[in-house]
Amino acid sequence: MTERWSSALLTDHYELTMVQAALHSGAAHRRCVFEMFARRLPETRRYGVVAGTGRFLDALEHFRFTPEVLEFLERNGIVNSSTLSFLADYRFSGNIWGYAEGDCFFPGSPILVVEGTFAECVVLETLALSIYNHDCAIASAASRMVNAAHGRPLIEMGSRRTHEEAAVAAARAAYLAGFNATSNLEAGRRYGIPTTGTSAHAFTLLHDSERHAFTAQLESLGTGTTLLVDTYEVMRAVHTAVELAGPDLGGVRLDSGDLEELAVKVRALLNEKGAAKTRIIVTGDLDEYSIQALAIAPVDGYGVGTALVTGSGVPTASLVYKLVARAQSDDPDAPLSPVAKRSVGKPSKGGRKWAVRRYDDNGVATSERVFVHEPELTPLERPLLVPLVRNGEVVGREPLQEARERHVRCVAELPAPARQMSRGEPAIPTVFEQRPAL
Amino acid sequence: MTERWSSALLTDHYELTMVQAALHSGAAHRRCVFEMFARRLPETRRYGVVAGTGRFLDALEHFRFTPEVLEFLERNGIVNSSTLSFLADYRFSGNIWGYAEGDCFFPGSPILVVEGTFAECVVLETLALSIYNHDCAIASAASRMVNAAHGRPLIEMGSRRTHEEAAVAAARAAYLAGFNATSNLEAGRRYGIPTTGTSAHAFTLLHDSERHAFTAQLESLGTGTTLLVDTYEVMRAVHTAVELAGPDLGGVRLDSGDLEELAVKVRALLNEKGAAKTRIIVTGDLDEYSIQALAIAPVDGYGVGTALVTGSGVPTASLVYKLVARAQSDDPDAPLSPVAKRSVGKPSKGGRKWAVRRYDDNGVATSERVFVHEPELTPLERPLLVPLVRNGEVVGREPLQEARERHVRCVAELPAPARQMSRGEPAIPTVFEQRPAL
Repeated sequence: MTERWSSALLTDHYELTMVQAALHSGAAHRRCVFEMFARRLPETRRYGVVAGTGRFLDALEHFRFTPEVLEFLERNGIVNSSTLSFLADYRFSGNIWGYAEGDCFFPGSPILVVEGTFAECVVLETLALSIYNHDCAIASAASRMVNAAHGRPLIEMGSRRTHEEAAVAAARAAYLAGFNATSNLEAGRRYGIPTTGTSAHAFTLLHDSERHAFTAQLESLGTGTTLLVDTYEVMRAVHTAVELAGPDLGGVRLDSGDLEELAVKVRALLNEKGAAKTRIIVTGDLDEYSIQALAIAPVDGYGVGTALVTGSGVPTASLVYKLVARAQSDDPDAPLSPVAKRSVGKPSKGGRKWAVRRYDDNGVATSERVFVHEPELTPLERPLLVPLVRNGEVVGREPLQEARERHVRCVAELPAPARQMSRGEPAIPTVFEQRPAL
Repeated sequence: MTERWSSALLTDHYELTMVQAALHSGAAHRRCVFEMFARRLPETRRYGVVAGTGRFLDALEHFRFTPEVLEFLERNGIVNSSTLSFLADYRFSGNIWGYAEGDCFFPGSPILVVEGTFAECVVLETLALSIYNHDCAIASAASRMVNAAHGRPLIEMGSRRTHEEAAVAAARAAYLAGFNATSNLEAGRRYGIPTTGTSAHAFTLLHDSERHAFTAQLESLGTGTTLLVDTYEVMRAVHTAVELAGPDLGGVRLDSGDLEELAVKVRALLNEKGAAKTRIIVTGDLDEYSIQALAIAPVDGYGVGTALVTGSGVPTASLVYKLVARAQSDDPDAPLSPVAKRSVGKPSKGGRKWAVRRYDDNGVATSERVFVHEPELTPLERPLLVPLVRNGEVVGREPLQEARERHVRCVAELPAPARQMSRGEPAIPTVFEQRPAL
């Protein structure tokens, strides 16, 4: 990426034509509040995971209508010349608050609150939704897999099953939610996530025998490497692997067959051969349910692909970005009024929101409380919105590691059913409160 | 994108460590054939759609281990110095054939055949799969929606529900499969796809009344614009819209409620008011089934979002990339031998493939025929593999429009059940033939 990279066209045509029409009416400069939230969670999710914040802040700083972008808009007659002038000078100058990355969310949680003029806020809609809808969906699935793995390490290896750039973001979201490593090298370069890998069947088939292949891998990559043992016959391959590598063989990977039964037999053989420390890594269309089912098997790590990068049945997080309040007139000092459409089946709650999580005396979360005024906090409440952008300046950037550590804390605070695999209601209820303003 | 953009790290860690181990064993330079294919189709797909070819060829030309990339690999100790040297000089120098973009595919169809040394072919695995698995999944869903729409125009508007770059690729795949336009501006800039849009509820809510909002939009964008009429009360909004725009109003958009019932009522009102040419565009979580259900409603176009970009229940195409043949020794002239692993439940058919589609006397496709030798064609057979890369040089690039037109022809050739929405078997069977070589 160079300085000229622009995220400004990663948006919908109508965002810019709405700006044009609002510039015409004069309402473009009315102060507005937009909020991002999910109306509901899928029934396979007891909580959502906030992910994408770091990527959104990067994209926001590159949301610039460069000469190349303006030339495209002009040549195709997408907006008129006064709108082009407005866009040429575009810099988001407002304020953004959001749930901290890695925190959990529930139906109605205002995970992003964007305040500024209509024109400067509305054009961020598609970009913000694209990033958060993708990353939250992946992180929410990943967090369940982490719960199912009960402390055993998880490797993200789904790059080949999703768009090549979505793959990089998926690796980031999975790491944030507790995965230990990724196979995706670009995620390693861009985000510093540990990368790892084993070997493919093609490598074994390339050589004249499995023994030749194992020898090459061990000599080149060291005995700490992980050998793929299911190209031909698993038990024979494990025999060969230990014979060649000795007891310090790093690991063996099982990618097919009855993984539970195989893991038991392979563990026994490894132990018998003195390779008690050799790890057994299992892969092959795993999801949170098969990970949980393998809890009783002697497995040392899981590689997860398709189910992770497709959000395990929920590939998008259903987040929406809605205007919830606007100035009562074009006067810059006009007070804000709540607004909400009345469309059938898609209710929104008007008014700028504040949110807190409430805990019981044991520190277990009991509810998500959403206010239309800034509330006075009680001792057992934690405010959920943190500043991300202040007067156009990004102030909420943090190392990915911090979000990863926060996620561990936030999941641990939830009541135990939150970490079950079963379908059901959100782990805590969302309460829209009428408590008086500060 | 600049010249320095590299796609080389959009891959899995193990691709590069396999190259290292194969360089060590000497097998890295063995001539190999890898093939990409789907073992099966989802039961909601009677055919798959080949999409991603143009994007893959672009990415292939940028698959270069730049100094920045090599520095990352070295600093993190991912591969050794002799592998770094090999990668620094990496240029794919082999041959690639593929099903033409926009054509249909079936279980076992060899949609990509990659021939070269092991090292130069294996490193393309993840990148090729990422691109084709995503784009084929979206195009396959889009093609069903096009069938369901029976000639009515479709607008892709799902950018906000998928990763921001996947959104651009999804718009391309949808257009290829017969969608008429996209809301995604970057897809317009990058691929020349027509872009379009209407207006959001926020635009109406921003103004002091719906009448103010409509007036602003009509004055700024012209009477040919499409007004969103479901923010408050639909019939009243349609009244206001025609009163303000006159009979030349371009369109109205319905985004909620019982779309069929509303469309009938809105059509009647528009006609009564003399706006017989005003189009009714419907949106709101449509998929191929709801599009088909609206066939009897007076609808002039569909906007499709979530279902399109998530592949309508099938977000990834399950394509795999497998070594199917390799030289019998390190000798550059050694003949190729078929190879296939014996893992449980994941059989592969060894040997380089050729494929043809066979037709009956009426030009209706009757079967997909796959050979392990180049077959002599009968008059009612069409060869399916076209050259994409010859000796490392891209020769298969074509305008997106050609793939789009090919797709129309290829779907029309399939037997009628292929275009039904019901679950079932692939539209034509795949036959692995033993016909003698040429």
